Amino acid sequence: MTVDFHDYWEGSKKLIDGALDEYLPLESETPEVIHQAMRYALFPGGKRLRPILTLAAAEAVGDDSRAVLPTACALELIHAYSLIHDDLPALDDDDYRRGKFSTHKAFGEDIAVLAGDALLTLAFGLISKTGEREEIKGSLVLLVIGEVARSVGTAGMIGGQVDDLKSEGKEVPLAQLESIHHRKTGALLELCLKAGAILGGGTQEEIESLSRYGRDIGLAFQIGDDILDVKEEKKGKASYPALLGLEESKRKVSELIKRAKGELACCKDGEGILGKIADLVFRRSLEYNAGNP
Amino acid sequence: MTVDFHDYWEGSKKLIDGALDEYLPLESETPEVIHQAMRYALFPGGKRLRPILTLAAAEAVGDDSRAVLPTACALELIHAYSLIHDDLPALDDDDYRRGKFSTHKAFGEDIAVLAGDALLTLAFGLISKTGEREEIKGSLVLLVIGEVARSVGTAGMIGGQVDDLKSEGKEVPLAQLESIHHRKTGALLELCLKAGAILGGGTQEEIESLSRYGRDIGLAFQIGDDILDVKEEKKGKASYPALLGLEESKRKVSELIKRAKGELACCKDGEGILGKIADLVFRRSLEYNAGNP
Repeated sequence: MTVDFHDYWEGSKKLIDGALDEYLPLESETPEVIHQAMRYALFPGGKRLRPILTLAAAEAVGDDSRAVLPTACALELIHAYSLIHDDLPALDDDDYRRGKFSTHKAFGEDIAVLAGDALLTLAFGLISKTGEREEIKGSLVLLVIGEVARSVGTAGMIGGQVDDLKSEGKEVPLAQLESIHHRKTGALLELCLKAGAILGGGTQEEIESLSRYGRDIGLAFQIGDDILDVKEEKKGKASYPALLGLEESKRKVSELIKRAKGELACCKDGEGILGKIADLVFRRSLEYNAGNP
Repeated sequence: MTVDFHDYWEGSKKLIDGALDEYLPLESETPEVIHQAMRYALFPGGKRLRPILTLAAAEAVGDDSRAVLPTACALELIHAYSLIHDDLPALDDDDYRRGKFSTHKAFGEDIAVLAGDALLTLAFGLISKTGEREEIKGSLVLLVIGEVARSVGTAGMIGGQVDDLKSEGKEVPLAQLESIHHRKTGALLELCLKAGAILGGGTQEEIESLSRYGRDIGLAFQIGDDILDVKEEKKGKASYPALLGLEESKRKVSELIKRAKGELACCKDGEGILGKIADLVFRRSLEYNAGNP
């Protein structure tokens, strides 16, 4: 029996939203304002792509993904923390996020800084709790914590953000742009796959293949963002379409998605979900045409 | 043979500074600016009280503290991250720290936010590496990671900072001030003792006694800060001397230090170091008199 992709996504999203609600301190817990800000940044969320990728990777290499849920949610917390800090006036200075005020506009800059800090802190705490489950070895959890620190630290996500900030208004060669995209967006997506595969009990080969899949769809996702977000060019920011042209950018997305799907031969790919997520990332980058015929 | 306290401190400080230098990415590693900012915030550091407490706690319950070094350094990274973010214009707005420009004055607010994030991230990564040492069980390391997340999250350090920010200019009753002090400063000091005792292989009783010692000297340390920093009153901030008077504040410090030292009966207290650190915190709070005869 094949699970319908839309049903799978909605079911997973519900599971993740319920777990996030359980893991986050209540708004009524003191100090209320910081917990309100943390929840404001997380609910209602986006597509929950990162935790869904984590769960799907665990399913692709094992039978049960439930034990991976705290880690999947932790990676969503890290995504949320990075958006709060990126939106700050001193960084990208964005007043809006997902159709509402960004966290610092709603709660003040002081609370936004601390809410980001708190989400990052809570994320590591959550992952450590995974070790309390008998079916997952503590050594694997420690391995994942090390991978998280590396992927979202200065060698990964934070480093990408630094180079992105520093390259604004400058000419950026393609290799540098790809490196920024890989670190700023791709590193966290790759981490989701890797963490899910490790905790799901994957073999070394499975872990590596799924990580490469994550790396490729991560870059494809970001090029898709570039294609969708033509405004970026106006802000003097480098983008794939600006450097390569629109058609060549789409060709690159197509190539990355094909390669990513090739990596899935390694695993049983739970219900073909990872293949369908790759297709989704591909179709997303074509939406540009749909809206601009 | 008793080790001289001054020699012990200097020796430990050298060990810690060397380890921090090893654990932090080089300034020449890309992106250079973030690594420069991280090192700027850490070197030359303060007294390294937090990692020294961590090492001393491990020694008080076991024979070898070397395995605890990454975690001791991680707690110093967390202290440094909290100072960078606290100093930001949107929070305490301090231009100077330890006689030089604060990190955001030296590197800009954007890099200061990200350098704080990076230090917090690196801290968790460092602790996870402790699990690679055969003499320390992975389950203990995971326990410590959970304790760190709790102590420096919204139930601890971040929560104390939120309440401190929100109470500025308001009348704060003593119970609330003590709660802020406990969380903003005490929680991290208590954590240092607890983490050292857990990783050093302490019994449940030793871990609890040393945690209470940490809690008491943490509050004593903060009241000492209040006593030393008479400027705080002018900024409309609540302080122990403002609420209790100078003599009563000193009496409170004395009482806390006595109680803290009482807790040390539980352990062999490596070379009496923890007792001497308690004495140091006590003497520090009397320095006010020395400068103001």
